[in-house]
Amino acid sequence: MSKPLPHAHPFDTALALSQDPSGHFSGHTNQAYWNMVGPFGGITAAAVLRAIMLHPQRLGEPLSLTVNYAGALTDGPFELQVTPVRTNRSTQHWTVTLLQNDADGAPVVSTTATAVTAARRETWSLSDTPMPPVPAPQTLERRVMFKGVEWLNRYDMRPITGPVPQTWDGGGHSSLSQLWMRDEPARPLDFCSLAAMCDVFFPRVWLRRASQVPAGTVAITVYFHAGSRELAAAGTDFLLGQAQAQEFRNGFFDQTAQVWSQAGLMLATSHQVVYFKE
Amino acid sequence: MSKPLPHAHPFDTALALSQDPSGHFSGHTNQAYWNMVGPFGGITAAAVLRAIMLHPQRLGEPLSLTVNYAGALTDGPFELQVTPVRTNRSTQHWTVTLLQNDADGAPVVSTTATAVTAARRETWSLSDTPMPPVPAPQTLERRVMFKGVEWLNRYDMRPITGPVPQTWDGGGHSSLSQLWMRDEPARPLDFCSLAAMCDVFFPRVWLRRASQVPAGTVAITVYFHAGSRELAAAGTDFLLGQAQAQEFRNGFFDQTAQVWSQAGLMLATSHQVVYFKE
Repeated sequence: MSKPLPHAHPFDTALALSQDPSGHFSGHTNQAYWNMVGPFGGITAAAVLRAIMLHPQRLGEPLSLTVNYAGALTDGPFELQVTPVRTNRSTQHWTVTLLQNDADGAPVVSTTATAVTAARRETWSLSDTPMPPVPAPQTLERRVMFKGVEWLNRYDMRPITGPVPQTWDGGGHSSLSQLWMRDEPARPLDFCSLAAMCDVFFPRVWLRRASQVPAGTVAITVYFHAGSRELAAAGTDFLLGQAQAQEFRNGFFDQTAQVWSQAGLMLATSHQVVYFKE
Repeated sequence: MSKPLPHAHPFDTALALSQDPSGHFSGHTNQAYWNMVGPFGGITAAAVLRAIMLHPQRLGEPLSLTVNYAGALTDGPFELQVTPVRTNRSTQHWTVTLLQNDADGAPVVSTTATAVTAARRETWSLSDTPMPPVPAPQTLERRVMFKGVEWLNRYDMRPITGPVPQTWDGGGHSSLSQLWMRDEPARPLDFCSLAAMCDVFFPRVWLRRASQVPAGTVAITVYFHAGSRELAAAGTDFLLGQAQAQEFRNGFFDQTAQVWSQAGLMLATSHQVVYFKE
């Protein structure tokens, strides 16, 4: 159904799903988007959304997506159970469960998700969080945040503010990062790649403390403010991403994120809660 | 199991749940928390969380809660299917479905939810969004936002910034509201009442446009930054709530919220996506 072409973009290869007769989707983890102990969380969120997009009963376009990372995926096949639990006149509600078999062949829940798709109509619209003034992406250099973390090679990221600390000296003073980003190689923006890009921000605790403690996303929510027409207009341009923490407390913190098109349109806002150690 | 006492607080009466032999919970909507076409969304979120709190397999305290309002509840009984889908060493993942029977007696999904509970340990902690300087609640007057909306009588709300517009003249210029709030009558804070208070903010579109268009929450996420000890310390004090929109676009907008204790501790951050018309 969504088999990649021989020369498909790595993002599409990673999101290749087949639908089985029971209506569930099957996929396979992909080393091109590997993080440290499992896939990049953004590619898992994108796979969840891809399954919804492929579902024959889908109505409308993504409005919200919440993904809960219940356990790290292991390298191998996975199944996505995708259910449109309620369809209204202009909104549709979805639940998704991602399962992998354990060593004994028993299915184990790795990820849960809920989503809303919606038929959008043109209305009064207004941006209450304008894009901050930043230098153009062409004036900045691409930087790879960490060597040896494979998924980071799948993005062209150009930090503006709040790059990965150069020294882990405990001297952090802000949790704000801004960067230009796009798929590498360039790929036309769609809802799945936008969802993934809402999760590219490294853990705010590393920045605020200048200390690289163990950390991992527990749950992420993405609200989509753009429709497919606006995403098509963004094309392969860089997107501006901004992330900031609000509270670090007893093993967990939250981080908020905004993603604008290069033309200054707010495409998505996102929030996540992150585990950290010590 | 959680039958209210004869003189129970209305919040506890509204959240009275009984557990049936299959492990599901039953409740009933309550007119004391009625909104315009169904219950106040905050009371539904609180009922979802109450069921998790009562579940015999629960480990840890609430960390995150996402509630999707798939359809308005009607006045009557409801069932909550509560499943701990995965239990890790320090986090536990939950899915919840709220069902009501339709006119033909067939169960219909009204609400879906996911949640994470967690065992928290003391770690390095830091607030990156300090409480804004505001006048004390005792210096402000209680205001009821709208007459005839029953749930608003269940809260003592004292607006500081961004009250409900006095005139609907299209002249709005900001989406920021700050207010002191507590249960009315006063009730010691717990996770359920905190979750409900994350949803007391009236739709940002009313404020930003000074126009009272039809609007309703589609989905809300709450991240809890405090544990039961901090909630107990907040007791029956007023809490400071702050809400602001980020983007209004084609029928939907998002709003972010922060809730601090009177002592200045960040208790919860929250985000929601809201439908609006025109």
